[in-house]
This record gives sequence, C-alpha cells and structure tokens, in this order.
Amino acid sequence: MVSAQQPEGVSPQPTAATARYELLTLGDELLLGLTANGHLTFIGGQLGRRGALLQRNITITDEADAIVAQFRESWARSNVVITTGGLGPTCDDRTREAIAEVLGQKLVFEPTIEKAIEERFARFGRKMTANNLKQAYVFERGEVLPNANGTAPGLWVEQDGRVLVMLPGPPNELQPMFIDQVVPRLARLGLLTEREAYVQLRTAGIGESALETKLQPIFDRHGAGLSVAFCAHQGAVDCRVSSPTGALSYAQLEAVAGECAQLLEDDFVCYGHDTLAHVCAELLRTQEKRIAVVETATGGLLSNAFSESCGACKFFAGGVVCCSNDAKMQLLDVPECLLLQHGAVSDEAAVAMVTGAAENLAADYALAVTGFAGGATGAGGNPVGTIFIALFSPIGVWSKKLSYPGPRSTVKVRAVNAALDWLRRELLRVQRGGVVPVRRTGVMQ
Amino acid sequence: MVSAQQPEGVSPQPTAATARYELLTLGDELLLGLTANGHLTFIGGQLGRRGALLQRNITITDEADAIVAQFRESWARSNVVITTGGLGPTCDDRTREAIAEVLGQKLVFEPTIEKAIEERFARFGRKMTANNLKQAYVFERGEVLPNANGTAPGLWVEQDGRVLVMLPGPPNELQPMFIDQVVPRLARLGLLTEREAYVQLRTAGIGESALETKLQPIFDRHGAGLSVAFCAHQGAVDCRVSSPTGALSYAQLEAVAGECAQLLEDDFVCYGHDTLAHVCAELLRTQEKRIAVVETATGGLLSNAFSESCGACKFFAGGVVCCSNDAKMQLLDVPECLLLQHGAVSDEAAVAMVTGAAENLAADYALAVTGFAGGATGAGGNPVGTIFIALFSPIGVWSKKLSYPGPRSTVKVRAVNAALDWLRRELLRVQRGGVVPVRRTGVMQ
Repeated sequence: MVSAQQPEGVSPQPTAATARYELLTLGDELLLGLTANGHLTFIGGQLGRRGALLQRNITITDEADAIVAQFRESWARSNVVITTGGLGPTCDDRTREAIAEVLGQKLVFEPTIEKAIEERFARFGRKMTANNLKQAYVFERGEVLPNANGTAPGLWVEQDGRVLVMLPGPPNELQPMFIDQVVPRLARLGLLTEREAYVQLRTAGIGESALETKLQPIFDRHGAGLSVAFCAHQGAVDCRVSSPTGALSYAQLEAVAGECAQLLEDDFVCYGHDTLAHVCAELLRTQEKRIAVVETATGGLLSNAFSESCGACKFFAGGVVCCSNDAKMQLLDVPECLLLQHGAVSDEAAVAMVTGAAENLAADYALAVTGFAGGATGAGGNPVGTIFIALFSPIGVWSKKLSYPGPRSTVKVRAVNAALDWLRRELLRVQRGGVVPVRRTGVMQ
Repeated sequence: MVSAQQPEGVSPQPTAATARYELLTLGDELLLGLTANGHLTFIGGQLGRRGALLQRNITITDEADAIVAQFRESWARSNVVITTGGLGPTCDDRTREAIAEVLGQKLVFEPTIEKAIEERFARFGRKMTANNLKQAYVFERGEVLPNANGTAPGLWVEQDGRVLVMLPGPPNELQPMFIDQVVPRLARLGLLTEREAYVQLRTAGIGESALETKLQPIFDRHGAGLSVAFCAHQGAVDCRVSSPTGALSYAQLEAVAGECAQLLEDDFVCYGHDTLAHVCAELLRTQEKRIAVVETATGGLLSNAFSESCGACKFFAGGVVCCSNDAKMQLLDVPECLLLQHGAVSDEAAVAMVTGAAENLAADYALAVTGFAGGATGAGGNPVGTIFIALFSPIGVWSKKLSYPGPRSTVKVRAVNAALDWLRRELLRVQRGGVVPVRRTGVMQ
C-alpha cells in the first residue's frame, strides 16, 4: 500500500497483528435498540479468526454530519475502516455521499450496477423504482464488491495508505460479501493472516479454570511463542491457541491442539466452531442411530437444536414438548401414578419420559429435560433452576439432577447443552466399544 | 445540575429530547465477536421509551489507555455518559481507575460494599477472595447503585454539568439496576421523560407501507405536533406515536393510538411490547381453552414461544416436533397413505397433522407448521421458504401456503409469527361471537 499520509501510531507496514481496524455501524435502528448489532459480532469474529483484533466499533445515527465527523476521526487513526449500512436506495441512506466528502472523491455513475439492479428486480417480477439508481454511484477511485443477495453493492477504496470497506446492512448480503471478497483482499494486503490465525478446541463439561489448570503443562512446554485464550459459553469452554509472533507455525499449533485434545479425552468436543448438537448429529449419522427428545423446561429448544442440522430427518426421530401431565401420559405413556407420586420434576418422571419418547418414537437414543427454568418457584421443594435430565441408550437409562442459577433464558440454554453433552459422551463410549453395562433402568445422582 | 463546564453544542438545560447520551461498552469479548452487544439494544431501547435518542455507542478494548482517551472525548461532548463492564474483580477490569483519572477523582474504600460482597459469598456458601475487594472502591464524590444480583455495584457521578453512570457487565445485574435506579434518577434531572414518551401499537399481518397509508388520515388530523415512527419485525410492524415538542399530552397520544387501533381492527395486536405468543396466551386463558402444536420446519420454536409464558401448562397442551413421517404417524395418527400421496409438505399433510395434534393432546385449538425453512431444496416442486400452516379450532380446520425469502432463521421466525397471528385472529373472532361457519375440514388457499 502507498503511504501518502501515514496513520498515527501504527507501523508503516501493518500486519494482521498490528493493523488498526475500526468498524462504523450506521443506523438509528441500532441506537434505538430495535435491531441487535450483529455486524459487530460477525465482523469482530471474522477478523479475530484471521489474526486481527477490531480496535473499536462505533454506532452512530444516520445524520450526514455525524457520519462525516466520525469517519474523519476513524480514518485518521486506522489502517482499515469498515462501514455497514446506509448504502440503500432511500433518503436516509447518506453514507456514500458523506464519506466521499471526507475522501475528496467524486461519486460516478456505474451503468453495470444499474443493469445488475434492473436484472435483480426483473428476476423477482418487480419494476425498479428510480431511487434505486442511487446505488449505482461509486467512488471514482475505488472498486465495486458485487452483491449476490441484494441490490446495493459494497465498495472498496485504497487511499492515503489506508483501506475503506463499505458494506450493505442486511446480514445475508454483508456476510457472504465479507467472507468471499473482503477477507481475501485484506489477506493479500497482509492485513489479515492467509489462513486461520488460531486453532480452537471446543470443550464441554469442564470449567474454565479447571481446563486451564489441566492444559497448562502442555502450554508451558511450548514457551512464550504460544498464546492461549479461553472463552466460556453456557456449559462449554473454547480454548484458542495462536502464535501472534509467528514463533509457531500453523502445523505446530495444530500439534499443540492435538496434545490438548488427547489429554482432555471426552471433555474435548471438536476443533473449530461446530455446535454440540451438530457433533451429536454427526455421531448419530455415523452410527446410523436415531434420537428422540422430550422436554418441558427447555420448551422446544432441545428439539430445535437437532432440527437445525441439514437432513435432520435421518437421525432426529422427533420431539415432544409437554409441560402438562396429560401430554406426558397421552403421547408417551408415562403412568399417571408415577407423576402423582414423584411429581413431574423428578428423576423418576425424567426416566419414564425418556423411555416413553424412545419407545413411542422408535428411537435408539432419547433425551428428556424436565424442571423449573424460571417464573414461579418450583413445586415439591425444587427451587427455580432445578433441572432433571435423562438419557436413554441401547444399553441403559439414567437420569441426573442439575441446578443452574440465572434467568430463564440462561437456565434453558445450559440445560440444552448439558443434555447434548451427555448424549455426546454416551455416543463416543458406544463408538469406542467401551464398557457395556447390563441393561437396567435406574437413577444415577 | 451545576454547569461548571458546559458541554459543547447542547442546551444549558438539557431535556430528554435534547440531551446527548453516549454509551461506552467495554470488553474484548465484544470486539472479538464472542458476545453480542446486548447492552446497546437494551439501553438504547430504554432511553427511547423515555424520549431520548442515544447519540453514539462506542465499543473499545479493556486497555486503560483506550478507556481514558475515549472517555475523555465522550465526556466532553455529552450530557450523560453510560459505561458497561469493567467493574469486576479481575485484573482486566480497569474501567474504574481509568475514569477516576479523567474525572480527577480519588477512589475511596467503602466498607458497606465489602460487607455486601461478603454476605453474598456467604449466602452461596463460598469464601470471598481478596481480589473482590477492588469492587468496594468508589468515587470520592459520587453515589453507589446497589447490585441486587451480583457483587460489583454501579456508580453514579454528577460533575461538570454532566452525569456519569457506570454499570456492571452481566445483563441480569445491569438491566434491573438500569430500570429501578438509573431511569428514575435521570428522569428527576429532566434528562428522561417522567413516563413513556410514546404510545406503541403493535400490528401484524399488514405491511409497513400499507399500515402507513391506512393510518395517515388520522395522523394528518393531529398536525405537526405528532411524530410517527414505524419499525418492521418479521411479520409484525410497530407504530410509535409521540410528541417530542410536547404539543400533544400523553392522554392525547393514547387517544390517537386508540383511533388507530380501532381503524386497524384485527391487524391491531396490542399496545406496548407484548409478543404475539403472549397475546394468544392471554386470549386462551380468558377463554379457558388449550392449544396444541405440531411443527417440522420451525423445529420447536413455535412450542417454545408458548412455553415462554409463565404458567404455560394451563393453556399449552403440548407440542410435537416431527420431521420424519414416522413420528407424524406414531404420535399423531397421520395416515401414511396421505403422506405418500400428497407429501409431508402439503395442505393435506398440514390439516392431518393439526387435527392429529388437537385430538391426541385433547386441545381446543391447534397449530401445525410444515415446510422447507432452509438447507436442501424442497421436494415436490416446493422451493426453500415454502411453508404450510394449519389451524384447528372448535369450529373448523384450515390450512394455507406461505412463501418466505431469506435464510433459515428468518423463515423460521416468520412462520412462527404467521401461525401465532392466525391463531390470534381466530381467538378474537370466537371471542366476539362472530360468524360461526359449519364445522368442516378443508383447504383454504
């Protein structure tokens, strides 16, 4: 990159590790709390994968003055400025003009964009209104990033030793454009690493500090060139190993991760970003087994986790959501006397539910979740946050009692993850041909 | 407020409508895309409800230097600066010290906070570690906002004609603190309105532009003192009427909203922020009826929408998630020949599913959703995004075909909302004692 005007406080040849990235997210709907700022999550995550830390995200209103002032400031101190939103056809889409003013560039009409917009409208049988032509104006010295999923193209400018990337607001337009067009360009300029900058291990069933303690001897052996970061989710902890100084190659990072995975045994879930449900789905597909679900406290979210997988029919036998005792009896043949004696939130009920689900849905495995996720205090001496989960497998049926603090939404996610993790461990054990206990129905506390 | 040093470009006596609010959200986990910035959504929404527009949200790293520089800049141009995060016990919680430096204030130890933290640890049977004492340091000239759900209290400072509010990062600590303590204080200073600044009408089943066209004559009658804003969700559109100049009183705004609601008839869902599922739940409770659900494409999300209501057992008979034909046959007695002849994604299948759900779960009403939400192209000539929904009521059974563009997550939410809205309309019709057709089973396109 030419460095006519060097950004302050950054090296003349910025790398992924040293480049200053700022993200400007535009739109009153973000500041009014009407829409979550998913662009920060997405772009921050994508930059992180390629070795760069987003320095700052600024959300401002759609006013041209505010955009001009903020862009001027961000441009002066950054190597890369990324903007989202404000590229559409309506009168409150003012970003393009505001930024052209700061860059001292003219906007010029690009007939090929007009044609692409017209074709898109024709494909959906609609007529293009005149205000759409605004989207065909581009910087005189810049490039166009074609938009496969919408009308407003992205824009790319290299100027003053800096890069400007302007992206449309809708996530289904922005995200593929960023991955397919922006990341490779930034990598070619050396502003992102050529491949993933870290190897991520996803773990479950082990706390963050216990995980760190267990893996520390491995990290110590590899010295200061190795950088380690942990991120706890609800019941899962990710560990990322990287080498910002380049002391360790990617292959060496993979080797370190491999050592960790081996040491962690079944607490290791996968490399990368797959969900627990996806990992279970793959194990079920491999073993040609099917899973059934019955849930009360999680309201349908455990079933939904499985049904997110493509081709879920193949391994997901079905789910039943039943907060009433009637539904448990009607659909799953849970005996009424059992519910009356032990209550619907009990080990006994969980075992009866999971067995009923497996048998009525002709599944090889089944999961049950029952409990009190929030709202009124639980009955039968069980406080809110008490969850019973049960697992049915070809070699046995078990239940266990868990307790989670926090609001309803947290309890639900943790219960879903606990159930999925239990299934995952059982599937691994069967796959290994491990200890096969005699078939029994019982309660495991 | 004393105005020793007047913020630039803002009125000497700021009101909710003129006050400049900035939000600083702190934390690498936001910039790395590990955590969504829910604080922006929550605080932006809460300020909006009380007549203030958040001017700017800035997310920066946990580095003390970055915090000092950004806070200095935001403080200079704002009436109110709100910070989130960085108040905890660990070494990367540096916000308190960085901001004290800019304010020229000392941090002083507050023994009552130490005591509160100790008591909280004791209540959960844990021992307080020494690093927790950091949270007992407060500004020498400021107030403490007690934290009912965590250890780090919030902090409130009035200085230089401005207000600083520092809030802890966990949402379940921040949100009640903001609503119960911060909003009333800001309202007392005249920086927020004393009550909600707008009346919101929630609508469904009508597009944004059609809604505007329909309501415009009402708005025109009330003149320029009335301000109107629309916000489209997935299948629902909110309309907010307000009067930033104060030309219309709150009672007058309520009257305007009442006119709109009457004109909209059943397209009007509710005032305020209730969900479609909650509105349906209230209608079901009033009518003492129960609903059953069967869903494929929505994977469990329709059931989950009902089970979010407290005491859902009373009106939610249960849900079945069945992507396989086997499950439809086993749990709901859907005839195999029907599935083979018409396919599982068809009007006929939707009607059979919804009837099976109502009868097997002994429910008065039932909803079915079947279709292709994403992934592989749909079978039987139905493209991805094709959804059939069916409604069972005491007076009939109907189905309809819908088609939604966009990614899987969007299709799922729109299908859930379409099903809920249909049920809501039917419940309203029954409640009014409207036209009662003869009982029939049929297909309505």
